[in-house]
Amino acid sequence: MRLRNKPWAKPLIDGNPDLIVTNPNEYRGKWETRFKRSAPLFIEVGMGKGGFIIELARLHPENNYIGIEIQTTVAAIVLKKQIEIKLPNLQLICANGSGLSEYFEENEIDGIFLNFSDPWPKKRQEKRRLTYRTFLKQYQNVMSDEGTIEFKTDNRGLFEYSLKSMNNYGMNFEQVFLDLHKNEEAMLDNVMTEYEEKFSKKGQPIYKIVANFQKLEQV
Amino acid sequence: MRLRNKPWAKPLIDGNPDLIVTNPNEYRGKWETRFKRSAPLFIEVGMGKGGFIIELARLHPENNYIGIEIQTTVAAIVLKKQIEIKLPNLQLICANGSGLSEYFEENEIDGIFLNFSDPWPKKRQEKRRLTYRTFLKQYQNVMSDEGTIEFKTDNRGLFEYSLKSMNNYGMNFEQVFLDLHKNEEAMLDNVMTEYEEKFSKKGQPIYKIVANFQKLEQV
Ligand SMILES: C[S@@+](CC[C@H](N)C(=O)[O-])C[C@H]1O[C@@H](n2cnc3c(N)ncnc32)[C@H](O)[C@@H]1O
Ligand SMILES: C[S@@+](CC[C@H](N)C(=O)[O-])C[C@H]1O[C@@H](n2cnc3c(N)ncnc32)[C@H](O)[C@@H]1O
Repeated sequence: MRLRNKPWAKPLIDGNPDLIVTNPNEYRGKWETRFKRSAPLFIEVGMGKGGFIIELARLHPENNYIGIEIQTTVAAIVLKKQIEIKLPNLQLICANGSGLSEYFEENEIDGIFLNFSDPWPKKRQEKRRLTYRTFLKQYQNVMSDEGTIEFKTDNRGLFEYSLKSMNNYGMNFEQVFLDLHKNEEAMLDNVMTEYEEKFSKKGQPIYKIVANFQKLEQV
Repeated sequence: MRLRNKPWAKPLIDGNPDLIVTNPNEYRGKWETRFKRSAPLFIEVGMGKGGFIIELARLHPENNYIGIEIQTTVAAIVLKKQIEIKLPNLQLICANGSGLSEYFEENEIDGIFLNFSDPWPKKRQEKRRLTYRTFLKQYQNVMSDEGTIEFKTDNRGLFEYSLKSMNNYGMNFEQVFLDLHKNEEAMLDNVMTEYEEKFSKKGQPIYKIVANFQKLEQV
């Protein structure tokens, strides 16, 4: 989803420095100070219009959440919603997810969500995929050892790629779903994203993996 | 697929000891002696009616193949075909795949095929699945380090399970297909099994993974 830049977006972001930051490097190791209380911290990279991270923050006041989005106008759309509801456990970042290690200290994060990430289907675009090994390395850097990556997508090619990339990196698979919406148990606490609503209505299977970086027992 | 035992099956098997064995332990480390010439050796565990392994043997005279099947009558159906065509690079075993380490010496095998294996969906049946870790351990024992497991199925639950089991065991994913028949490149050298014909006609996606036991680079 590419959105044309709206003229109101940048000023809105600049006018709400308590809710959204564009200079995340400055909070490295200090994100706790931006929340009402200290709590486990989860992030979503590429939050889009924010339906998922807002709902998660609402459902789980016991955790803190940060939504990250690279496009100014898209981030500003989420900001508008947050200005309305002012969830105390939600912060926003408008920046490129490829800089995670600069934004967060080692172990500062307890879990990472990737939802319907851009597929970048061409071989030469591999490095931009959010499950490419340089991204995985950063997730590993900033996340505690017990943390998990939860990744959902409707895109078959991206999911096939991600299974290989995460496996080849040495990640440990906890859960794999090849048609999430057909799994009643998994749907009990599933929070839908905007893209998920759209693609599941078309009848496409939704894929999901939960994986961690714990060292595998050597065989 | 459970077939009622046919009375002709056992005598046919006993009468063709040059084509099929029921005492595979006795050939451990000596399978080469049962073929016209020495060549890389591939096996299929649970060959069913044998369409896949027969076609593979026909297409690749440069390799040797062994089809393994636990049901006497099913193995005898394959034997009937082999009596007709007498492929010099195909041998059959009627025995339980769970005994692989007793049938083959370390490194005696160069690759293993699993096709549409029985799903054993109940949790308490997990140990019978051909991708349960005790089976993986045996594949690793008998297969050379460069060898791969190629596993196809239409069964979503079994494939989800197998992705986790193979990953958790420390296997290395080379290829993953979540709808094999939509991938033109992969279909170029795809050999269909009886179950694959049946389920792909119904429009169900066919899943496939190719994985090896090479040690992952530690991250
Ligand atoms: C296809 S949309 C999905 C949005 C949302 N997660 C959903 O499921 O509805 C992907 C979003 O990720 C954002 N994005 C892509 N690459 C990014 C990156 N490197 N850092 C931050 N956001 C990124 C895009 O701008 C877009 O808004
Ligand atoms: C569902 S059928 C699939 C047959 C064939 N591979 C195909 O794709 O058409 C599974 C076959 O595996 C055999 N089988 C199941 N467990 C086995 C085991 N432990 N050892 C050998 N064969 C087994 C069954 O008897 C059955 O014939």
